[in-house]
Amino acid sequence: MARRDLLLKSIRQEKIERYPVWLMRQAGRYMQAYRELREREKDFLSFCKNVDLAIKVSLLPLEILDVDAIIIFSDILVPLEAIGIKVKFIEDKGPVLEWDGNPESLKKFNAKETEFVYEIIKGVKREQDEVPVIGFAGAPYTLAAYAIEGHGSKNFRKAKTYMWEREEDFGSTMEIITETLKVYIENQIRAGADIIQVFDSWLDSLPVVDFESMVKPYLIELFSYLKKNYDTPLIYFFRGSSSFFDKLKGIPCDVLSVDWSVDMAEIMRRTGITLQGNFDPSLLYSKMEVIEKKVNDFLNSLPRKTGYIFNLGHGLAPDMSQEKVKFLVDTVKSFKL
Amino acid sequence: MARRDLLLKSIRQEKIERYPVWLMRQAGRYMQAYRELREREKDFLSFCKNVDLAIKVSLLPLEILDVDAIIIFSDILVPLEAIGIKVKFIEDKGPVLEWDGNPESLKKFNAKETEFVYEIIKGVKREQDEVPVIGFAGAPYTLAAYAIEGHGSKNFRKAKTYMWEREEDFGSTMEIITETLKVYIENQIRAGADIIQVFDSWLDSLPVVDFESMVKPYLIELFSYLKKNYDTPLIYFFRGSSSFFDKLKGIPCDVLSVDWSVDMAEIMRRTGITLQGNFDPSLLYSKMEVIEKKVNDFLNSLPRKTGYIFNLGHGLAPDMSQEKVKFLVDTVKSFKL
Repeated sequence: MARRDLLLKSIRQEKIERYPVWLMRQAGRYMQAYRELREREKDFLSFCKNVDLAIKVSLLPLEILDVDAIIIFSDILVPLEAIGIKVKFIEDKGPVLEWDGNPESLKKFNAKETEFVYEIIKGVKREQDEVPVIGFAGAPYTLAAYAIEGHGSKNFRKAKTYMWEREEDFGSTMEIITETLKVYIENQIRAGADIIQVFDSWLDSLPVVDFESMVKPYLIELFSYLKKNYDTPLIYFFRGSSSFFDKLKGIPCDVLSVDWSVDMAEIMRRTGITLQGNFDPSLLYSKMEVIEKKVNDFLNSLPRKTGYIFNLGHGLAPDMSQEKVKFLVDTVKSFKL
Repeated sequence: MARRDLLLKSIRQEKIERYPVWLMRQAGRYMQAYRELREREKDFLSFCKNVDLAIKVSLLPLEILDVDAIIIFSDILVPLEAIGIKVKFIEDKGPVLEWDGNPESLKKFNAKETEFVYEIIKGVKREQDEVPVIGFAGAPYTLAAYAIEGHGSKNFRKAKTYMWEREEDFGSTMEIITETLKVYIENQIRAGADIIQVFDSWLDSLPVVDFESMVKPYLIELFSYLKKNYDTPLIYFFRGSSSFFDKLKGIPCDVLSVDWSVDMAEIMRRTGITLQGNFDPSLLYSKMEVIEKKVNDFLNSLPRKTGYIFNLGHGLAPDMSQEKVKFLVDTVKSFKL
């Protein structure tokens, strides 16, 4: 079997010889080679928009870790900037967004303004055909929460207060973002993305009772549109997985990517959908022998010999050891099914 | 029906006229009267140990909010200090703990060293008999995680790495803390606490797969000991409620207090145990009309007319408005069953 097909076969739940593996934020600051390339642009968004650099960065994890998929190097805030929200990245603090909270002040998305993203996909496809290329976007709630709150947050209280007090404006914002994402993602597919992952990184800030009315309709709208028009497999990553897992019925995606709040073996037993993730990234701070034991115990516990993609429950952190990350990937790859 | 019995009746699932209400951290910095009393002691732990002040503080929410229970004013770190871990509170930063991580360096708990806690309970009982008095303690995992990490944390990676790498030491630490808690809590019961709440505030940092072997045995040990020897109702508060709710079978407690990651109406339908909490504290940042609507919608959705205690999914925050907190309590109290 060609390496190229491994991940896609696991998504389709066909027979595979080992679980495929890639890692969220696999091209990131924990990596020496990344830090060197990062120095070439002062500003983070300029770095994302420098197509040549972004292609090089995207390819690093294939070269260094030999993972089974490349996710393009970019940021989920790119399409928000394109609809008129000011985005700045503050060193060691993260993104700061400026928007007056008025949905009418948002401008219509013009796919050409994010041309550089599609160019990165084309470039990564051109440079290698060993592994599939994952395009991505933030999910409507995560992007709306970011735009309203103005920055990352533990509780997103400003975003939630907005949602509760200004239901109609919240709905309009979600709608505009959803329509933007349709076009943004389909352009990534047309550029050659083999898989799309949608990141609902802040979903865990939402009380579970608000999901059905405030968030789910937009996910259905987005995924249905993509499913109707394209064959590309769709992965939905959502934090707060134990809260929301059972609420996702009716969202037409192919893979659910979960955090460590669920028991993977248990959800595999009661659901047919392909799964991804779950491994606690904190384990990468442990000794190698602990990592090895935990990976093997985990993979041995899985009742399904396909229909799973190894990944973490969240992204790699800047203070992780590249050596251990590589060891993690190797350990997964040497686990035979 | 005497006001005094309302909360206990709801715990026993007897007929009640309205849901009882109290709030975690109901005596706290959001309250003007608290801030005034707080000024009388420089150091936070000295404030907790000043019996007269702590009694006054504990009583404030009855006087100002007219809640249906008083939780004594204290801190979950008190018993850790008593077993030899250095605890300091840094202004605007929270607690910092110092311990070498060696279980053998911990000293045997002497209940007399926390005499001031029992005196506070006696004092609050003496000052009023209108509502029941809740004594409390941190849960074994939350206290162990605090002691190992040295401070609060989003991921508790140091604590988890310790747990994974030094399983035996982690077990010894959990055992020592559990034995300490047995004595600490039973002394609170003997001093007159009508109810005990055990706070597993950091449980959400634990991957769900580690709960069964690393945490649950100590909860069973603690709660079984208390249940065998005392009639006092026991409340278990745990964050990450959607992850752990279904894993708690076999822990003999009377009430489960949950965060907003679960759907209260849904869990009420599938479980018989008395429940508490769930309301997202962020709602207190909303306008009063939103608070009122959300409380009424929530209470109307509950399929059970007893066996519930209104509370938040987590504690009140310093920047909340006392006026809105009072309005929240009044709204709950005016909801007739």
